[in-house]
Amino acid sequence: MNDDKLKKDDVYIKNGKIFKIGKIKDLKVDKVIDGQNYITMPGFINTHTHVGMSFFRNYGDDNDLMTWLNNYIFPAEEKLNGELVYYASLLSFAEMIKTGTTTFADMYFFEEETIKALDKAKLRAQIARGLSSPDENDYRIKECIELYEKYNGKDGKIEIALGPHAVYTTDKDYLKKIAGIAAKYKMPIHIHLSETKFENDECMKKYGQSPTEVFDTCGIFENRTIAAHGVHLSDGDLDILRSKNVSILHNPSSNLKLSSGICDVSRLMDKRINVALGTDSASSNNKQSMLKEIEVAALISKLKSADNLKAFDVLKMATINGAKALGLGDKVGTVEEGKCADLIMINIDNINHIPNNDLIASICYSTYENDISYVFIDGELVYENGEYTYLVIEDIKENVKRLSENLL
Amino acid sequence: MNDDKLKKDDVYIKNGKIFKIGKIKDLKVDKVIDGQNYITMPGFINTHTHVGMSFFRNYGDDNDLMTWLNNYIFPAEEKLNGELVYYASLLSFAEMIKTGTTTFADMYFFEEETIKALDKAKLRAQIARGLSSPDENDYRIKECIELYEKYNGKDGKIEIALGPHAVYTTDKDYLKKIAGIAAKYKMPIHIHLSETKFENDECMKKYGQSPTEVFDTCGIFENRTIAAHGVHLSDGDLDILRSKNVSILHNPSSNLKLSSGICDVSRLMDKRINVALGTDSASSNNKQSMLKEIEVAALISKLKSADNLKAFDVLKMATINGAKALGLGDKVGTVEEGKCADLIMINIDNINHIPNNDLIASICYSTYENDISYVFIDGELVYENGEYTYLVIEDIKENVKRLSENLL
Repeated sequence: MNDDKLKKDDVYIKNGKIFKIGKIKDLKVDKVIDGQNYITMPGFINTHTHVGMSFFRNYGDDNDLMTWLNNYIFPAEEKLNGELVYYASLLSFAEMIKTGTTTFADMYFFEEETIKALDKAKLRAQIARGLSSPDENDYRIKECIELYEKYNGKDGKIEIALGPHAVYTTDKDYLKKIAGIAAKYKMPIHIHLSETKFENDECMKKYGQSPTEVFDTCGIFENRTIAAHGVHLSDGDLDILRSKNVSILHNPSSNLKLSSGICDVSRLMDKRINVALGTDSASSNNKQSMLKEIEVAALISKLKSADNLKAFDVLKMATINGAKALGLGDKVGTVEEGKCADLIMINIDNINHIPNNDLIASICYSTYENDISYVFIDGELVYENGEYTYLVIEDIKENVKRLSENLL
Repeated sequence: MNDDKLKKDDVYIKNGKIFKIGKIKDLKVDKVIDGQNYITMPGFINTHTHVGMSFFRNYGDDNDLMTWLNNYIFPAEEKLNGELVYYASLLSFAEMIKTGTTTFADMYFFEEETIKALDKAKLRAQIARGLSSPDENDYRIKECIELYEKYNGKDGKIEIALGPHAVYTTDKDYLKKIAGIAAKYKMPIHIHLSETKFENDECMKKYGQSPTEVFDTCGIFENRTIAAHGVHLSDGDLDILRSKNVSILHNPSSNLKLSSGICDVSRLMDKRINVALGTDSASSNNKQSMLKEIEVAALISKLKSADNLKAFDVLKMATINGAKALGLGDKVGTVEEGKCADLIMINIDNINHIPNNDLIASICYSTYENDISYVFIDGELVYENGEYTYLVIEDIKENVKRLSENLL
C-alpha cells in the first residue's frame, strides 16, 4: 500500500505557483475545482521526444532502428519543411496535453517552428536543435545559437539546448566544438546514447571506445547532459555517467518496438544515476503518452523480479526525476508550495480505478488516458474534460491532413 | 502497409447477424451510423480472465505469482460471496465493453452470479467453474454440471466449461475424472498451464512430467481445451499441444507483472499452435483492456526481432484466434456476412491516429481506449460514445464501493 504518499488537502494556485497546500479561511478565489474524486499530481515530464516527427506515425513499423531510420525516416525527413514541423508539433502537443504531459525535452530540426507552436500549447520545454556532421559552415550549430539568443528563457518556460544526435551521426572534432559552445553559453546537451548494440559495436570499431567514453573524452559531459536510451552500457560507462551527473532517459516502448533491447533501470539506479522517462517520437512509439510509458516501464522491469520497479518508482521517473534531468528540480515535478503549478488531475472515480485499493498502483497500472480531466501549466488550465483552452483541434487536424497528402 | 486488409464498404446488420457487406439500394433501415471516420472491426475476444476478481484490483501489486496468490489473493478469496462476485463481474463487464471486448472466457467461482450479471451486460462468454482438489464430494464438479444443465447455450451466447485450475491445485485422479465428465457432456476445458518455472519444477518433482504431459496423460486434451499462459513449454510440450489442438492464451501484461516471464508466441505459431490473447484478471493486469494487451504483446515480441509479431498478427490473436480457441470460429472474430454482428467501431479521426499512414498499425500501436465509440454484440448496440445501453454505471460503482469497505 502507498497511502503514506498521498495527502487529502486543498491546493491553492496564485500567479502560476502552488501558493498553499492546506486550508485558507474565507479566501476569495476565481475558480474552484472539486478534487474529491481526483488525484492531483505533478504533470508528466516527457524527457525525450521529437515532436516534429508526428507525420511519420505508423510509418515503417515493425522494422529495427537502423532499417527504420535508413529506409523510412531519413528519406522522409528530406521532405520536411517549417510548415510541416509546425503542425507536426501542434499535433504532438495536443496528444501530450490530453495525456498529462506538462514539460518535454525535444531534439529535432526546424525547432523555431516548434517554439512558435508552443505559443499556442503553453507547454514547458527544453528544445535542442539536432546536430550532425558534416555540418557545412557549422550552419546547424549557428542555428542553435540563434535559437538560444532569441528564445532561451522565453516566458520562463523555454530552455534551448544543443543536440549532438549520436556518436554515429557526428565525429569527435564536432563533439568537442559543441562541448565548447555549451560551456561558453551554459547550454545543456541532449544526446542519444547506446540505443543499440550495433551502435556500440560500430563505435568500438571506429574509436576503440564506447559511445559514453567518446562523449566523455570530447568534453560533452562537462555540461548538464541528458542521454536518451542507455540500453547497452558497461559498468565503466555507468561510472562515467554517475560521476558526470548525466541523466538517462528511458524510452521503453520505443526500445522494444525498434528491437533495441531494454534499459536495465534498477541497475542504473543502484549506481545512483538519475533515470527519467520519455516516449520518443510518435513514429517509434507510436503514441505520445507518458501513462503508457509508465505502465510499460513498470511491467518490463519485472522481467528481472516482481518487486523491481514499483509503481511509485516509475511515477517518480515520470515526474521529479525528469525535472531533475532538465535542471527544473526546484521548479516542477512535485506538488509543493512555491513550485510552478504544473499539475494534472486524474479521475479515480472511473470504473477502472474502482475499488480504490491502492491509488499509487492505480495511477501506474489502471489509468486510461481519458481519466486525465484537468491539466495546468504554470497555473493556467490548458485542458479541461476533453476541451483545450488554446489549441484548436479541428484546425490542427485539417492542416495535418492537407500537408500529409503525398508526403510519404 | 496494410491497406489490403481493409475495405471501404457498408455493413448491414439484421437479426443479430452481418447481413450484407456492400451496398443495398433503397433499403429501409432502423438506424444508420456514419462510419466514415471509423474502423469497423470484430469485437475483441478476451480468452482468459477472472471477472469476479475485480475487487482485488491493485491489491498486493509488485509481488511474484506465488507470493501474490498465497499472501494476498487466496486469503481474500475466502471472503468472497455471491453478491461480491455479481458486482465484481459487472465492474469487469463495464470496463471490457468500453474497451471493445465482445466475448470472453472466464474461470472462477460463484459463476452463477457472473452469468446473472451477463443478463445486463450482453457479452458472449465461455464460463468455467474453477476446479481444485481436494473437492469434497465433488461439490465443485457437481456445481459445474449444474451450471451446464441450467445455462449452456443460454441466449445462444453462453457456453459452460470445466476449469481444472492448474497442476499445482489438482491431482491426477481428479483430472482424469474431469476429463471423463468433459467427454460425457462434450464440455470444453479451461486450464492454467506452465505459467511459471516454479510450477514446472514442482510438477517435475511430483510427477516426473511437465504440466502439459500431466494434463495429456489424464486425458484432458481429448476435449477442446484452452490453456492460459504457456510461458514455459518444452519442444515436446509443443508437439503434444499441437497434436491435441490445444489453444494457448497469451496474457503478456499479467505474465510480466507477476514476473512469470514471456510466452514466445512466434515459436508456438511456427508449430501451428493457435495462440489467442487474454487480459487475465483486473488484479494481475490491472486493466481489462484488450487494446493494452495487443500493444504489449506486439512490443515484447520484438525482444526477439523487430519484425516478429506484426500489428496484424496480434490483431488476429485478439479476434479470430480467440474465436477459434472458443469453438466460435464460424460465428465471430471477423467481419463477414453471416457471422454474428459482434463489432466495434474505432474513431481513427482522433488526433492520435492522424495522419492515417497505416490503419492496421494505428489500431495496434496508437489507439486509446476511448477511441472505441460503438460496440455491438449480436447486433445490439451495447455502447455508444461513452454511454452504455444496459449497464447502469453509478449503480455498479455504488455497490462495489459499499461491498469493498472492510473487505481487504
